[in-house]
Amino acid sequence: MQLHSFFNSSTSYRVRIALALKELAYETLPVNIRVGEHRAEDYVANVNPSASVPALIDDDFRLGQSLAIIDYLDQKYPEPRLIPLEPALRARVLEFAALISCDIHPLNNLRVLRYLETELEVTPQQKSSWYRHWIAQGMAGAERMLERGNTGPWCFGAQPTLADMCLVPQVANALRMDCDLSPYPRSLAVFEHASKHPAFEAAQPQRQPDYIA
Amino acid sequence: MQLHSFFNSSTSYRVRIALALKELAYETLPVNIRVGEHRAEDYVANVNPSASVPALIDDDFRLGQSLAIIDYLDQKYPEPRLIPLEPALRARVLEFAALISCDIHPLNNLRVLRYLETELEVTPQQKSSWYRHWIAQGMAGAERMLERGNTGPWCFGAQPTLADMCLVPQVANALRMDCDLSPYPRSLAVFEHASKHPAFEAAQPQRQPDYIA
Repeated sequence: MQLHSFFNSSTSYRVRIALALKELAYETLPVNIRVGEHRAEDYVANVNPSASVPALIDDDFRLGQSLAIIDYLDQKYPEPRLIPLEPALRARVLEFAALISCDIHPLNNLRVLRYLETELEVTPQQKSSWYRHWIAQGMAGAERMLERGNTGPWCFGAQPTLADMCLVPQVANALRMDCDLSPYPRSLAVFEHASKHPAFEAAQPQRQPDYIA
Repeated sequence: MQLHSFFNSSTSYRVRIALALKELAYETLPVNIRVGEHRAEDYVANVNPSASVPALIDDDFRLGQSLAIIDYLDQKYPEPRLIPLEPALRARVLEFAALISCDIHPLNNLRVLRYLETELEVTPQQKSSWYRHWIAQGMAGAERMLERGNTGPWCFGAQPTLADMCLVPQVANALRMDCDLSPYPRSLAVFEHASKHPAFEAAQPQRQPDYIA
């Protein structure tokens, strides 16, 4: 198995956690999105029509989009299960994952921050306010979801799920951008717990072969 | 069953299509996001911690986030199935749905366009360019996915799936914003086909009880 990945991409990070939890061996194929390698003609035409990272190659099957990849892995390699089968828990996990992956991450990723800088010519202060605004809105929602259903140590119970796979890279990203996350203690507690777990550790940006300090 | 919905919300539209395809009766509970009803204290605390539409109420279970709701409906009311079980088809459907719901829609929804106007004070021309930029990037990806796997009349075969539920509201939104979608003929063909289907028709904004002309 191979994974087209960028060390600092939150969506790649999600899939790396899933692969590590399932103990699936894979080769990292670095795609440097800072220099536009995700838009290279061959990559877009033959690997990932989304023109993004990550993309999984499993035998001849090539699949983009982190949420689709994790579902695919969960179907094919069900142990440990990352998207629970019990209906209410499953719904809560998918709801949480959608909050992170649809309501927070898309607004603060590299291509959007670059558009703000180059096309809208925002000031560094405006860019920072943009980033913090969507973190604050989204993380407040995440925290409310955890207040409703979180018993720890993971987002939804005793086992890590897709929810944790989405939360941890998002929190790491926000901390890197110096956001104050103290209003979200349950989210931070999950993040702290995860940071000591070997699969989550193995997936961290600084452990990747394409890491740039 | 009840659905908190706004007529013009693409994410509500997705769920309305799913409910109509499954022929599930429901009551519409309008939430006017233009005046901030989705941020009302009671709604956020007791219905939808995401502070958004849609939210489904099924007996005592309350669930937000359109993708989570459609998965929940598919588990509980599996006919017709909207997220296929066959692994490769399932992966393609989820990949396509993620492209629309993570890479396009979050950048062009009401709260983001309002932020551009009020906080960044962009010109109408800049706002229009922003909208068109993300439509062009995302729809090019959608079209590439359909070129790889589309045999018609729906995105991925003879039956509508979650992919169509994501594509149709996005295309309707882009057409309303006067985007040129002629570079995406396969997407447009699916949209045209869907517009004649009773379940997709019933879910259209102008058919909703809270429609404002």
